[in-house]
Amino acid sequence: MTTALHASRTDAITWPTPESFTTWDARTPHLRRLDTKRGRKMCSSLEEAIRRSGLTDGATIGFHHAFRDGDRVVLTVVEQLSRMGFRELTLASSSLSDVHSGLIPFIRQGVVRRIFTSGARGELGEAISHGLLDEPVQLHSHGGRCALIQSGELHLDVSFLGVPTADELGNANGVSGNARCGSLGYAMVDADNADCVVLLAEQIAPYPNSPASIRQDQVDLIVQVPTVGDPAKIGTGAIRVTTNPRELLIARHAADVMVNSGLFTDGFSFQTGSGASAIAVTAFLRDHMRRTHTAARWALGGVTGNLAELQNEGLIGRIADTQTFDTRAIEDLRGNPDHMEISAEQYANPFGKGACVDELDMVILSVLEVDLDFNVNVLTGSDGILRGAIGGHPDTAAGAQLAIVVAPLLRTRIPTVVERVITRVTPGANVGVLVTDVGVAVNPAYPDLLERLREARIPLASIEELCERASAIAGRPEPVEFRDDVVGIVRYRDGSEIDTVRRVIG
Amino acid sequence: MTTALHASRTDAITWPTPESFTTWDARTPHLRRLDTKRGRKMCSSLEEAIRRSGLTDGATIGFHHAFRDGDRVVLTVVEQLSRMGFRELTLASSSLSDVHSGLIPFIRQGVVRRIFTSGARGELGEAISHGLLDEPVQLHSHGGRCALIQSGELHLDVSFLGVPTADELGNANGVSGNARCGSLGYAMVDADNADCVVLLAEQIAPYPNSPASIRQDQVDLIVQVPTVGDPAKIGTGAIRVTTNPRELLIARHAADVMVNSGLFTDGFSFQTGSGASAIAVTAFLRDHMRRTHTAARWALGGVTGNLAELQNEGLIGRIADTQTFDTRAIEDLRGNPDHMEISAEQYANPFGKGACVDELDMVILSVLEVDLDFNVNVLTGSDGILRGAIGGHPDTAAGAQLAIVVAPLLRTRIPTVVERVITRVTPGANVGVLVTDVGVAVNPAYPDLLERLREARIPLASIEELCERASAIAGRPEPVEFRDDVVGIVRYRDGSEIDTVRRVIG
Repeated sequence: MTTALHASRTDAITWPTPESFTTWDARTPHLRRLDTKRGRKMCSSLEEAIRRSGLTDGATIGFHHAFRDGDRVVLTVVEQLSRMGFRELTLASSSLSDVHSGLIPFIRQGVVRRIFTSGARGELGEAISHGLLDEPVQLHSHGGRCALIQSGELHLDVSFLGVPTADELGNANGVSGNARCGSLGYAMVDADNADCVVLLAEQIAPYPNSPASIRQDQVDLIVQVPTVGDPAKIGTGAIRVTTNPRELLIARHAADVMVNSGLFTDGFSFQTGSGASAIAVTAFLRDHMRRTHTAARWALGGVTGNLAELQNEGLIGRIADTQTFDTRAIEDLRGNPDHMEISAEQYANPFGKGACVDELDMVILSVLEVDLDFNVNVLTGSDGILRGAIGGHPDTAAGAQLAIVVAPLLRTRIPTVVERVITRVTPGANVGVLVTDVGVAVNPAYPDLLERLREARIPLASIEELCERASAIAGRPEPVEFRDDVVGIVRYRDGSEIDTVRRVIG
Repeated sequence: MTTALHASRTDAITWPTPESFTTWDARTPHLRRLDTKRGRKMCSSLEEAIRRSGLTDGATIGFHHAFRDGDRVVLTVVEQLSRMGFRELTLASSSLSDVHSGLIPFIRQGVVRRIFTSGARGELGEAISHGLLDEPVQLHSHGGRCALIQSGELHLDVSFLGVPTADELGNANGVSGNARCGSLGYAMVDADNADCVVLLAEQIAPYPNSPASIRQDQVDLIVQVPTVGDPAKIGTGAIRVTTNPRELLIARHAADVMVNSGLFTDGFSFQTGSGASAIAVTAFLRDHMRRTHTAARWALGGVTGNLAELQNEGLIGRIADTQTFDTRAIEDLRGNPDHMEISAEQYANPFGKGACVDELDMVILSVLEVDLDFNVNVLTGSDGILRGAIGGHPDTAAGAQLAIVVAPLLRTRIPTVVERVITRVTPGANVGVLVTDVGVAVNPAYPDLLERLREARIPLASIEELCERASAIAGRPEPVEFRDDVVGIVRYRDGSEIDTVRRVIG
């Protein structure tokens, strides 16, 4: 009956149909009536989706990294593209993890030629540092990716977005289905900007799927796949929860710094970022908040379960969530209207109309290295090899009133506080204070803060003292020797080149 | 302390700052670092907001009509623009109501020169029909407005969007504050498309305001105003609830048609639109749904409280809401996650990637006139004067499997069923059936439907019989005489000109 109705309606035109009016078509030839047949977006295979997307050799393909080390989409798509013979693609994932080391052969074969990402780890990071790519990898922050898109330098031809559930028109979210990953904050940017948006959905939900983090009016094609990712692996890597006494000590000091910064007043805002110590800060901060009856109006994340617990206790008014780090936080996002999902655009675009990072009072950030000028490296290890990701580091440091960076003085006998960072990711001018396990160093550009922390009897040291002490224990690190070839360009959030990553020897 | 921290941080640059790198600026001169000072978007007066918006003579100003006859924004802004000496503006409100008759002097003075709207009523409609405007008013459907924007024909320079609450960065919604209007579905289109988005907010909420129907990354300027609208007046005009026996009879017949259409199966979808009879259909439909254990998977609206009640009873899975018609529905949208707010883009854009209307099974639509070819007029009265609005009429009729139009055979002794409608808004090919108080006429293009309704003993008549009967009672209406000048262009949803409205004599 349904079909008959539809057919008869279409056949029975008794007056000139609107389509026969030529005014519109003549004026706007780029517009055409779209196919509105139900189910039209559904593809029976990834191959069909790729074919229908109009992807060509040399195009740019977008991905999101909400599943972090549990992602199954990037490799599935690149493998299929390889089978179909695509070449010279630019891969633009919001970030890449250990799990993406499987990309290496496809880069070698020329399927992928260029990469934009927030970072690289594991074998992929090592291979890039050894010259895997013909063109340097473009390393951006989360806000910087939005800026690169806005400028046109990063033009997303087709974005392949893994989602736990979508309906047949493309309404999708990360809080329903089996593979719940939480916020789709990075994917939302691709959904808004890619010429063609292809959803890889693990489950097809009845129409209309809700909430619609990605909306039907943003989606072109949908394919159901056996798996898009393993949420259990989101909380690995930079997101582990620590019981390490040194990391807990750092976290306690960092919370003390926050409380005595002058910014810890009722209605303050904060982000605690990723990294073991940074995440652990939340627990110590909670004690201070309860004792002093000081509540945060809002918190920003990278959201963990313990942050969500503070919110449930009434210690935080609202949480703005661009990526969700663990199961508890995912379940909280699912049911708590004061736990808001935001896009990376809302989070950090320096050229957008308003980013949350710019409203932050304090942010806690983990670092790999920090130097005498408080410049921060979160990208390369002490051997100069890509082992991290920029993430929201420079975005939050630039936006917040006070950026607190945390690190152990030494990591397995390698100094963290150094004369000059191997790779500058966040400029020292935006870093207020360094918290280590042996002392807290205040950036001299923040004299008021120094005075406050002194009064609060925080164990202070100058950055030079910390650097000396690290060298005294572990010896002054030999400078890493690099070849001249550049394997990575570090793009500051405004798009400028703040540093380069050079090829390692060997 | 806060200020000191910020100031000292900015002053203490020890290494070349990212801003000193010229790569980016050289490549993308149109990008600039935005002012991120807190409170930067707040304006102390509407005058300041207008000044900062960069509005110029001849520009296009956008508005939304969620407050319908309770709107206080259009006139407030136009009055201010007049005081500031602006001229030759194009006013593009998603619709206009009786309350906007106050625009007439500003049109006469040349402040407003052109109008895009879904309709016009009251003195404004009369004045336009008598030649008020130098250029014909462009009359579009809700989906058609999105299409006109997408084509570039309707370019929104500055949209002035009234919202009950917004925070200082622009996160705004219609479900908090005193002037709760419900869905901001029309405003969302302007927020997404206007070059400059100015919020007129009745209350400033703490940051971050949630839900963010309009988001911080869409908003340029914010001004607090004493009032944006009176929600009590949303439910006047086309949205009243009826106790009129004739209207209730029509509603009962319409529900019977739905139930016997072949589309009334578990999981169906429907919209009941505005207009007294259309709204009343919901109550009758509910009885059928309960008796036959037939639930709708989703409903689309224009949402009334009785629709929300059906959803709360489990008779509707989800509601997609582009405008909210009464207090009960507004409160439901506020607290019910299965009551989804959607933009007019998601609702009906024929050139978007996916519109809800295209997924509809059945829609009930009120009409002013319907003719022998089932063409529908919802725009002009029997005297040829603008007295209505196109709304989502042609959008839903084109998208739904079955469009059911409802009307009394006569309105105060004036026939509703006529040989030829004065103004064609929805082509008859998209209308399946007309339900009147004296009989139901099926479009001959739907023979299956005719057979089903005959079997169900629905009181059938041919459209010709209904037309004859109306004439027999009230006399054949004299053709309205018009002047040659065109005062309105009726734009079909794809932008083509489906009809014109001509100037009335007198």
